[in-house]
Amino acid sequence: MKIALAQINPTIGDFGGNTAKMRTFYERAAELGAELVMFPELATSGYPPADLLEKDSFLARAAAALDEVATWTAGEGKPAVLVGSPLKSEAVDGKRARNVAALIDGGAIRFMQQKMLLPFYDVFDEQRYFEPAEAQALVLVKGKPVAITVCEDAWNDKAFWPRRQYAVDPVDELMRQWAMLPPHIGGERVILNISASPYWFGKEKLRREMLVALALRHRAAVVLVNQVGANDSLIFDGASFAVGPDGRVIAQAASFREDLVVFETTGASEVEAVAPAHAVAEMWDALVLGTRDYVRKCGFSKALIGLSGGIDSALVAAIAVEALGAENVAGVGMPSEFSSEGSVSDAEALAKNLGIKFSLLPVRGIFDTFTGVLAEDFAGTAFGLAEENLQPRIRGTLLMALSNKTGALVLTTGNKSEMAVGYCTLYGDMVGALAVIGDVYKTEVYALSRYANREREVIPEATLTKPPSAELRPGQKDTDSLPPYEVLDPILKAYVEEYCSVDEIAGAQKVDAGLVRSVIKLVERSEYKRQQAAPVLKVSRKSFGMGRRFPIAVKADV
Amino acid sequence: MKIALAQINPTIGDFGGNTAKMRTFYERAAELGAELVMFPELATSGYPPADLLEKDSFLARAAAALDEVATWTAGEGKPAVLVGSPLKSEAVDGKRARNVAALIDGGAIRFMQQKMLLPFYDVFDEQRYFEPAEAQALVLVKGKPVAITVCEDAWNDKAFWPRRQYAVDPVDELMRQWAMLPPHIGGERVILNISASPYWFGKEKLRREMLVALALRHRAAVVLVNQVGANDSLIFDGASFAVGPDGRVIAQAASFREDLVVFETTGASEVEAVAPAHAVAEMWDALVLGTRDYVRKCGFSKALIGLSGGIDSALVAAIAVEALGAENVAGVGMPSEFSSEGSVSDAEALAKNLGIKFSLLPVRGIFDTFTGVLAEDFAGTAFGLAEENLQPRIRGTLLMALSNKTGALVLTTGNKSEMAVGYCTLYGDMVGALAVIGDVYKTEVYALSRYANREREVIPEATLTKPPSAELRPGQKDTDSLPPYEVLDPILKAYVEEYCSVDEIAGAQKVDAGLVRSVIKLVERSEYKRQQAAPVLKVSRKSFGMGRRFPIAVKADV
Repeated sequence: MKIALAQINPTIGDFGGNTAKMRTFYERAAELGAELVMFPELATSGYPPADLLEKDSFLARAAAALDEVATWTAGEGKPAVLVGSPLKSEAVDGKRARNVAALIDGGAIRFMQQKMLLPFYDVFDEQRYFEPAEAQALVLVKGKPVAITVCEDAWNDKAFWPRRQYAVDPVDELMRQWAMLPPHIGGERVILNISASPYWFGKEKLRREMLVALALRHRAAVVLVNQVGANDSLIFDGASFAVGPDGRVIAQAASFREDLVVFETTGASEVEAVAPAHAVAEMWDALVLGTRDYVRKCGFSKALIGLSGGIDSALVAAIAVEALGAENVAGVGMPSEFSSEGSVSDAEALAKNLGIKFSLLPVRGIFDTFTGVLAEDFAGTAFGLAEENLQPRIRGTLLMALSNKTGALVLTTGNKSEMAVGYCTLYGDMVGALAVIGDVYKTEVYALSRYANREREVIPEATLTKPPSAELRPGQKDTDSLPPYEVLDPILKAYVEEYCSVDEIAGAQKVDAGLVRSVIKLVERSEYKRQQAAPVLKVSRKSFGMGRRFPIAVKADV
Repeated sequence: MKIALAQINPTIGDFGGNTAKMRTFYERAAELGAELVMFPELATSGYPPADLLEKDSFLARAAAALDEVATWTAGEGKPAVLVGSPLKSEAVDGKRARNVAALIDGGAIRFMQQKMLLPFYDVFDEQRYFEPAEAQALVLVKGKPVAITVCEDAWNDKAFWPRRQYAVDPVDELMRQWAMLPPHIGGERVILNISASPYWFGKEKLRREMLVALALRHRAAVVLVNQVGANDSLIFDGASFAVGPDGRVIAQAASFREDLVVFETTGASEVEAVAPAHAVAEMWDALVLGTRDYVRKCGFSKALIGLSGGIDSALVAAIAVEALGAENVAGVGMPSEFSSEGSVSDAEALAKNLGIKFSLLPVRGIFDTFTGVLAEDFAGTAFGLAEENLQPRIRGTLLMALSNKTGALVLTTGNKSEMAVGYCTLYGDMVGALAVIGDVYKTEVYALSRYANREREVIPEATLTKPPSAELRPGQKDTDSLPPYEVLDPILKAYVEEYCSVDEIAGAQKVDAGLVRSVIKLVERSEYKRQQAAPVLKVSRKSFGMGRRFPIAVKADV
């Protein structure tokens, strides 16, 4: 069967825009001779629509979108469509919506496979919204049988996972049914999977390995179409692909951009699977897409970044320039009396390298006015946290004033290491619409920054080599308060992403248990900051934000 | 059977503190002759522990807490215990934890009923963590049969709910089993329910009606013990109670405070069900408890509030004083050049009435320094949003500086109407650790403020009667930007809490559809602000925060 993988980038709730986009892909696929055009999971609405699914009007618009798609398929020789959409549930009890793959052909919806396995972990909330399928069934497309699955339905192979999230396996059931088909109908096994599978570093590889294992075990072609594009915190990498029954890749779409790939399921020719030349490049591409889509889908075009001369803000600026264009990015230097000389000169050099506007707004005068007003309340106290935090809060207020005046979104520059231990100021440097590198550890910030310089020096050498400092008091260094990032980051990763215990971390990393405990205490005590943080672009298995839900008022032993 | 309802206020994760508290209640109940002491759902860990449930160490501490409880019950004549706890799941696939009611007697755990119906809507995420029970079974307590249910298990009566969340009904199953008991064992039917059922206005009444209906339908005594106390956004009202097979209330614990009630299930004497004398009093008590528990469970004792002379901050201050004591609350007046004369005098009068410290920090000088620094960037532009927002952002920065210096938590004063339409400044008046009245509509703010004045004038009359204004530009009134709150609030309630459409709202409330549409657009466009808001104390069916999950980058038709 000749199949088109229509890897589109939908906007949540934009049924009109999403179907218009789908139509363009459909027509191109038809020209290329496709018999079946596959769109991703929930393609009509975009994924994830979250609580919009609780609105009847939203589900009604989704149904109307499917009806519109049906009109394209009327008439001789038109390709069929397999498309994901939310729909009102028909169940008497239970959830009001269902997540379906609709098979549309000859002007009408011919079949709907409801999603059975509804993920509910990390960033997924599907059991909140959807009634699961009660059964799976094979269906004919242009006279040939196919097994239709929706994302997670193909992610429960008992031979692949050490512990499974669900007791049932829809693919097993479908393949059982296939084995009972009469030989003249059966033949080449084809498992279709429409997905909206969010990105984290390494996910593409896992997805490939898993579906190859599935293909080999069931001696079936496995065809996956995945959503591309970012919606709030979630980045979808696309990278749709198909493998033959022998596990060879027979079709491969691009990563991190829209794509249309038409291929023959029985095609013998092997296709080269895309593998990023550089592991860091994958994360870079994800962050660029995430930044671009967030800014644009929110209806903005410009971004504003506080440039400290440090590496975090330099990296965010470099990402923003690739995402939005240099003409749409502006940097602001806001030195205080504790800022180093390099603070301004390095920021200026960066702005020059990137070709972005740079302005300088000194913080000192405002700081002095604040401390003047607070003089009575602060009398007799030493310079401390209050005075330190004043500086980033003044900067945050300046950035928001410029944002309000110019209509540019502020991008936050904090990294995951800082957000983890609370080494950041709420309403200060945490101000912004999007935490671009909020899921990137400081050690990864260095790797990404070197990648940003792969062709020419964008981020100044001085920025790359100076010791990290918040520059909020004289001579301050990050290492005054924290272990070196080479020590800190692995502890954080083990604790935040893998839920390891103090002893496990101390043992595996050969560090002092007391140090590990003190780091964990910092993580737990700064939960309140993270709950007021800007959305974080997710690039790891466990990022701060929607997929990590910890209470604030807690008394937990460490 | 003589049962004790041990209505405790646990702290999340504080296994040591929670079991110590349970022991005190257990000993008192034993002295009062109880045969069975009932503690709430997840009493060992506190409810809701959220992602702490994903940690093996957390589940191990819960198991140890149950073992400790078992030691109390060893020996002649000791009461049995029914207590809720998380525990590691024994399932091979699926979720790693289960939510159990453990029946402990004679020094050991005798029986565990796993929760079957795991709520996953609004603020509930239980299917994220727990493997559901596969079966229900009756069990003997001190030789008499009882039916044990955990919270939601008793909330699915098909005769009560027009549409049910689940197809199965554990209570029906248990009563079917009861009907098959030999007559000398059966006899008086008793359904026990351990709950952590969060408060919203009207919930107590619903809970009563539902369980009375269950008692009458099954001719069974129904005994409910509920958690009390607040954990982050969720307030638990307690109000544990029991009804006889005839639906009469036979035991009733207090609302919004810990309580221990011992009663006889076959007791003929009718108990007076508590009903608050004043509907507004219920919400007041909830907010006081929510504020007190959040501040104290976070390890703080003092609070700081920006007092504008307006009604929102006045109400929050009055609530804080009842929650924490006047000596632990401080008010700060921060007038700008657009503040009315009453802004300071009304705030001063309030502080005097409440007996709290009040200080005055003028904003004007800081504002002028800011606009001076921004002069070049702002040149040629008119006074607008940027200048308006500067004022609350300066106030937010001042409050946070005082908070950092004194260790007092800042309480946010925004109401639900403002948060809904975005009539609030991110990093400005939205600054704070807790949004005390973030789920209270402006019209309800007036009702609560009058209640605050029920015994004497606490909130000055002038504050109650002046027209609401943000006072950010000359002569500004809320009605410049918004419809009057008597019109706005019902629109918001219908849209935010009931998901009504534009036409439904316009029709039911006899307002212009264009007005409704413009209000809804404001709600949708300010989602980004709400996602960076402080936790909101939930007092309605649908509050902003954890129970309402909408994407930001959306293109939705209105």
